[in-house]
Amino acid sequence: MATVVMKFGGSSVADADKIKHVAGKIVARRGAGNKVVVVVSAPGDTTDDLLAMADKITSNPPAREMDVLLATGEMVSSSLLAMALSAIGEKAISMTGPQAGILADTNYTHAKIKKVNPKKIRAQLAKNNIVIVAGFQALNHKGDITTLGRGGSDLTAVALAAELKADSCEIYSDVEGVYTTDPRVVKNATKLDYLSYDEMLEMSGSGAQVLQSRSVEVAKKFGVEIHARSTFSQDQGTIITSEEKIWREKMETLLVSGITFDKNQAKFTIIDLPDIPGVASKIFCGLTKIGVNVDMIVQSAAVDKKNDISFTVGRQEMKKVHAELDKIAGEFKFPQVVYDEHVAKISVIGIGMRSHSGVAAKMFDILCRKGINIEMISTSEIKISCIVDELDMLRAVEELHKGFGLSKKRQ
Amino acid sequence: MATVVMKFGGSSVADADKIKHVAGKIVARRGAGNKVVVVVSAPGDTTDDLLAMADKITSNPPAREMDVLLATGEMVSSSLLAMALSAIGEKAISMTGPQAGILADTNYTHAKIKKVNPKKIRAQLAKNNIVIVAGFQALNHKGDITTLGRGGSDLTAVALAAELKADSCEIYSDVEGVYTTDPRVVKNATKLDYLSYDEMLEMSGSGAQVLQSRSVEVAKKFGVEIHARSTFSQDQGTIITSEEKIWREKMETLLVSGITFDKNQAKFTIIDLPDIPGVASKIFCGLTKIGVNVDMIVQSAAVDKKNDISFTVGRQEMKKVHAELDKIAGEFKFPQVVYDEHVAKISVIGIGMRSHSGVAAKMFDILCRKGINIEMISTSEIKISCIVDELDMLRAVEELHKGFGLSKKRQ
Repeated sequence: MATVVMKFGGSSVADADKIKHVAGKIVARRGAGNKVVVVVSAPGDTTDDLLAMADKITSNPPAREMDVLLATGEMVSSSLLAMALSAIGEKAISMTGPQAGILADTNYTHAKIKKVNPKKIRAQLAKNNIVIVAGFQALNHKGDITTLGRGGSDLTAVALAAELKADSCEIYSDVEGVYTTDPRVVKNATKLDYLSYDEMLEMSGSGAQVLQSRSVEVAKKFGVEIHARSTFSQDQGTIITSEEKIWREKMETLLVSGITFDKNQAKFTIIDLPDIPGVASKIFCGLTKIGVNVDMIVQSAAVDKKNDISFTVGRQEMKKVHAELDKIAGEFKFPQVVYDEHVAKISVIGIGMRSHSGVAAKMFDILCRKGINIEMISTSEIKISCIVDELDMLRAVEELHKGFGLSKKRQ
Repeated sequence: MATVVMKFGGSSVADADKIKHVAGKIVARRGAGNKVVVVVSAPGDTTDDLLAMADKITSNPPAREMDVLLATGEMVSSSLLAMALSAIGEKAISMTGPQAGILADTNYTHAKIKKVNPKKIRAQLAKNNIVIVAGFQALNHKGDITTLGRGGSDLTAVALAAELKADSCEIYSDVEGVYTTDPRVVKNATKLDYLSYDEMLEMSGSGAQVLQSRSVEVAKKFGVEIHARSTFSQDQGTIITSEEKIWREKMETLLVSGITFDKNQAKFTIIDLPDIPGVASKIFCGLTKIGVNVDMIVQSAAVDKKNDISFTVGRQEMKKVHAELDKIAGEFKFPQVVYDEHVAKISVIGIGMRSHSGVAAKMFDILCRKGINIEMISTSEIKISCIVDELDMLRAVEELHKGFGLSKKRQ
């Protein structure tokens, strides 16, 4: 008998009708002779509503109390879903994260799972119960409720699938799967049948919000194959699996899997910085200390013992960055800081790059031929990112999408 | 250092401003050098909202799941209140019922507290924390969440006060205390300074909704003095304490403490029933089996081996009672069943009756002189109840309230 973990996102359990629909999907999977463990997020906007309630009380709530508050959302959806299953004659039982044996550290609001002890889940599965676990929440060694950060229910599902050695880990949401690029923006975007963990991680980091990144990391670590698919369709979604499997089973044929883009970018350039050790470290340690997340960093080769450093941050960080650079400026006598908040980042992602050279060249060529100026470049093993003028962003994405042959379905 | 238990009802924590107000009241009690344990109900209409959500899923939800759902309400108010206290610089920590060591049986939705293990509460009090306990909820031996029935937060407060040997148990709500009769109906109703447990129980049973009855029973059993008072006033409320203390300290001088009334009454009379053993038992066992709660029962003395039995039930039960009587009718050949759904019950309550005779006579005299017909009478040691025409009810209450001297404040 196979064990299946099914996770349903907030929009899938947003109201009574949707919860009943989800119950139907669960019964169908169960009917196929499976042991079923379900993980649910809080219904619809519940988490935002709870955050708003806390905000009316104080702008600085203790994290421990925030977790008690937020954990209620998933308890609501898990108990309602158990009721819906019971109403159609299925044996089902809800469990809070702590009851399900999800044990985490004491980093309230963004706890890390330390261990999963699925004793109670196993006992209920043995009694032929469908087990509905409240996602996103865990218990720490103090006996307190903690939560796993936004999107934490994905992590609950993957961790349970790993511990239960589940045959399948299905993550249901209101999107059909992972696309070659954002289908709301690019008409020809196509759904990917397969994607490697690393590609998924790069795509999450570049703005695609299908799966929580940490859940993908954990899935990679424990070899949990994720099937990201829609609650509201019968179609296959996207399988996120190991690169080895993709190569072995020849599931991928294209060099590039997806194009991502992000308008929330601001570029800083410090010109003619003295080329002495410790300058870069001073700047970026300073920015880290004030909580600014620096994305791309490019440093030119030194000329006349001077060089330029460019970096990008989220636009909402601009003020903080300015203030910090002013603080450091005195020490290193920055000759000039220029910034541009009208830039965007576009990235091409694909494990095909590992074995094929020429992807970067092709990307630059496509952009060049369309007259799109590249302001910064950064590469990883399976990703090439460029900063361009935000006015060029959409056109760049469409040209790249076409140029790399993504407009027709791969596989 | 004294230990104080403060319980706040749903209307006291209905929104952010009220929660902040409650935080202020807690700080004032704490400032007086007390260890403070707070028990909260779910905010405002939360419990009703959750019930409505469940009702949209199924009309017959599993009780275990209902408890998971309902328990979230008190988690919301407890965590928000801890945030509010923290925001004004107080050390506070919320606990769910299970965390607080409230252990109950497995009667989901109306569990009974079996034990209180306040180890965690004591540890937090020792660290100078204000402890905020989510009321109404408990843990059973299966590790499941259970709830204690409507008004169960009162019970949480009293049980904690008993176990912690608290010096004070204060139950805050949106009313000033317990009144001689319903102040919304009778203008001259006055707040009682003191009331015995038994009087409070009789008044709860007769419709006064200030405290959950079971909490009063537990308070009586463990000698917990309850101070029922308003969240929104500084005035003293009503102290509910032992009869012994009231007599010993001469806190009461009047025969009658309160007048209650209840329009939700329907009267059945079975005329000329054969006077043979087992008839009454057959009727009332039958009604119990179908879940009908019979209130007053009066049987006349037998004449010619026949007698009459009258009883009252809630008006919503009339159909069920009719059907059941029809079933039994064949067997005993009921000559005639008459009913009247336009009746009301009025009761005078007071521990003074124990030592003074003549209260009943005075009651009948007052009603008689005003031309109010008494249809049924039932008495207990500290209560006399009469069934009257519902059109006479209000006048009867007013006359009794005046006649027993309740319109001027006692003590």
